[in-house]
Amino acid sequence: MAMAYLAWRLARRSCPSSLQVTSFPVVQLHMNRTAMRASQKDFENSMNQVKLLKKDPGNEVKLKLYALYKQATEGPCNMPKPGVFDLINKAKWDAWNALGSLPKMYHEIMRALKAASKDDSIITVLTGNGDYYSSGNDLTNFTDIPPGGVEEKAKNNAVLLREFVGCFIDFPKPLIAVVNGPAVGISVTLLGLFDAVYASDRATFHTPFSHLGQSPEGCSSYTFPKIMSPAKATEMLIFGKKLTAGEACAQGLVTEVFPDSTFQKEVWTRLKAFAKLPPNALRISKEVIRKREREKLHAVNAEECNVLQGRWLSDECTNAVVNFLSRKSKL
Amino acid sequence: MAMAYLAWRLARRSCPSSLQVTSFPVVQLHMNRTAMRASQKDFENSMNQVKLLKKDPGNEVKLKLYALYKQATEGPCNMPKPGVFDLINKAKWDAWNALGSLPKMYHEIMRALKAASKDDSIITVLTGNGDYYSSGNDLTNFTDIPPGGVEEKAKNNAVLLREFVGCFIDFPKPLIAVVNGPAVGISVTLLGLFDAVYASDRATFHTPFSHLGQSPEGCSSYTFPKIMSPAKATEMLIFGKKLTAGEACAQGLVTEVFPDSTFQKEVWTRLKAFAKLPPNALRISKEVIRKREREKLHAVNAEECNVLQGRWLSDECTNAVVNFLSRKSKL
Amino acid sequence: MAMAYLAWRLARRSCPSSLQVTSFPVVQLHMNRTAMRASQKDFENSMNQVKLLKKDPGNEVKLKLYALYKQATEGPCNMPKPGVFDLINKAKWDAWNALGSLPKMYHEIMRALKAASKDDSIITVLTGNGDYYSSGNDLTNFTDIPPGGVEEKAKNNAVLLREFVGCFIDFPKPLIAVVNGPAVGISVTLLGLFDAVYASDRATFHTPFSHLGQSPEGCSSYTFPKIMSPAKATEMLIFGKKLTAGEACAQGLVTEVFPDSTFQKEVWTRLKAFAKLPPNALRISKEVIRKREREKLHAVNAEECNVLQGRWLSDECTNAVVNFLSRKSKL
Repeated sequence: MAMAYLAWRLARRSCPSSLQVTSFPVVQLHMNRTAMRASQKDFENSMNQVKLLKKDPGNEVKLKLYALYKQATEGPCNMPKPGVFDLINKAKWDAWNALGSLPKMYHEIMRALKAASKDDSIITVLTGNGDYYSSGNDLTNFTDIPPGGVEEKAKNNAVLLREFVGCFIDFPKPLIAVVNGPAVGISVTLLGLFDAVYASDRATFHTPFSHLGQSPEGCSSYTFPKIMSPAKATEMLIFGKKLTAGEACAQGLVTEVFPDSTFQKEVWTRLKAFAKLPPNALRISKEVIRKREREKLHAVNAEECNVLQGRWLSDECTNAVVNFLSRKSKL
Repeated sequence: MAMAYLAWRLARRSCPSSLQVTSFPVVQLHMNRTAMRASQKDFENSMNQVKLLKKDPGNEVKLKLYALYKQATEGPCNMPKPGVFDLINKAKWDAWNALGSLPKMYHEIMRALKAASKDDSIITVLTGNGDYYSSGNDLTNFTDIPPGGVEEKAKNNAVLLREFVGCFIDFPKPLIAVVNGPAVGISVTLLGLFDAVYASDRATFHTPFSHLGQSPEGCSSYTFPKIMSPAKATEMLIFGKKLTAGEACAQGLVTEVFPDSTFQKEVWTRLKAFAKLPPNALRISKEVIRKREREKLHAVNAEECNVLQGRWLSDECTNAVVNFLSRKSKL
Repeated sequence: MAMAYLAWRLARRSCPSSLQVTSFPVVQLHMNRTAMRASQKDFENSMNQVKLLKKDPGNEVKLKLYALYKQATEGPCNMPKPGVFDLINKAKWDAWNALGSLPKMYHEIMRALKAASKDDSIITVLTGNGDYYSSGNDLTNFTDIPPGGVEEKAKNNAVLLREFVGCFIDFPKPLIAVVNGPAVGISVTLLGLFDAVYASDRATFHTPFSHLGQSPEGCSSYTFPKIMSPAKATEMLIFGKKLTAGEACAQGLVTEVFPDSTFQKEVWTRLKAFAKLPPNALRISKEVIRKREREKLHAVNAEECNVLQGRWLSDECTNAVVNFLSRKSKL
């Protein structure tokens, strides 16, 4: 199973004077997701057995199979877990527990954005580290399960997601995405909140929410239909079409595409030029545009998180995740 | 006079289980407009005489000429009509009476949409039957004239139109247009309310409202400027530019264009794949997007119908219809 | 220093009857900006000295240098000015005084638009006279300075700008821009309020607001993100990217591009055809679209003018204008 690099690099360009760039300290946030160890025979065997059944074995069995799969591929779990008699929750917890420590990444990006909003930097740049821009953040993954069970966990995750997206809505300076490679999930939906998006021609844009029984986040249910027309947005957000960089540019999600061989050089030359512009003019012009959308964006964000919270607890979502991982295990 | 097929086919894909497509019952609605018999010599002679006049002969004369034309080309009319002394209304009624039984089609599509919204189908597909997607629905056509005269008829038509468009606004599942050929009028404007639009490269998109003295409907006065920018929307909705499939796709009205030779095969392969996605995720994701537009869309629909009602009773509309048919009779 | 022609030509097509075009009286508004006389040696010498300083000499010195530059290149000024001891205001006044009589142009266009809205013309066309469409209107330029000083002048200019843009928001008939060459500043931002924009392939579209320490006007902070997606709009409005006619068309700002060699002929043929359409249908269809945006557009306009008023009084704006002219003097 090919595992994507999850690292994002938050690069900020600080400029002491208002009209000249004198230094480029770069804050790098590395959040590599531990590569999943592949030992999938057991799980595949289990899943094949499931498929031979004429009747759906029920969520409980599927969840336990999924937990089995996770333990087989991930090794023993050393986190507190629900009581042994709470089988459904135990299974969900096992499933959700499998994919690493993602809330940490959310908190680190939020901290970096909050710092960048207050320092003397002119523009703020978010980019990936490695071959991928971001393989997405699976909000169904937790590092611990609270006493309240999965319902409480889903609620906590919705709160975290809402706060995370809110930081992008409120960011006061020009925010630029340098999309160096494939982007998945929330790293794509958030692009609608950036002020400019530069992409390598190697980049792709993929939001397979429906395939996972989930629904759009990052304000994309509002920004994408505006950016690219409802007929194009639906194909991405509801039917899960993966866009090339050229398609994403033609539809307004990406500002400009560069050949991968010269991508970094061309983009950073441009960004250095932007960082020489009058900072208050940049900030104020962005605010003129964002001001009249901010309230709406926060309302959309709240609604999307609320709907997602329900989705995470649905049978459909559990089924879809199991099916998705089952297909993935055969690649 | 080349007559377009008016037939739409409402194809629904029903799926008993949530993850597998097992059957594809297709509900077909055939509403072929009776081909108009062409015997236009008399009318052309009359119209040429009108053009020799230095002064406008007045609506009454033009309407009677139009009625004459309609009777010449259509044969005798067997519907109740206004009193013989009510010349203006009689002429309008003759004009309006000429083009067939369209409200029936509206009611059949509404009935099919309402049924599809409640059954266990996953997605709903609207497509044309024959060479055309739809040659449009001329709301100025009636099968009968009520005691209240044309004013009441215009009002009734506005009510019908509003209810018809409302069904598209409220439809709760992914709604997909398979545009197999040329589309005219309301079949074009409604596309802004669909979730995806797939078009053959034979398709064209035409909304000649101004030429007919009318104004936009189907929420297009709101959706088109959002979809394709005001400068492009105006050219279609106000100046009546006909778009090719490629142009419509570049401007966001169409999701994707296929060569006509492989159109049906490629599109239905894709639709079958969509019908395998988790149905609740599809429905809920659509609702997240539509929810915040629904109230606005209903208000736009009501306003458009109200304006159109006034247009249908205007001299300009009557003049424009007469001129339009006069030009058409020379083709 | 190449100086652009500032002339706009307001061409109105008057049609006595509702369905036939019988005359084309063209009201032409010529507002050529006096070409600036270039005698820049003194100023360049001064600016080079400034650059040798290790510390910013302060706004007062820079403004006086700028005034020196303006007087060197423009010749003596014959307008009333602030007291000689009010150095900052004197410098700003000298700076602002340099670029000619623009409010006159604003008033003439407003007068022409108001007349066109009431006469029997069908459509209204705005076009440039000469090689350029418009080199933009620098609102920081005045013909006189009131007793209240620059603060009052900035306020007056904001009021004038708001009224000027308001005329475009409220214009009741189809308003068409024929962009015959490069367009800069407010002549670009206003395009978002037109109903159709036809451009020669020689045209370019440039809004270098940030470079001048200013912020977007003409409702562009609202219309441009809607027309061309936020990621594209930001590149124009905040980072000052200049678009080609082809790029502007791909992004929805321009309706269609024509080769320059046939531009005038093709466009006017089309416009003549538009002028034959039913005038009430055109006006009412435009109103259906514009009505639900009008209140919003006026609010955006008011806010943009308010922000700009603050910008005009900022150090950043003064610095940026000085730097801009300094760079320009080296071309």
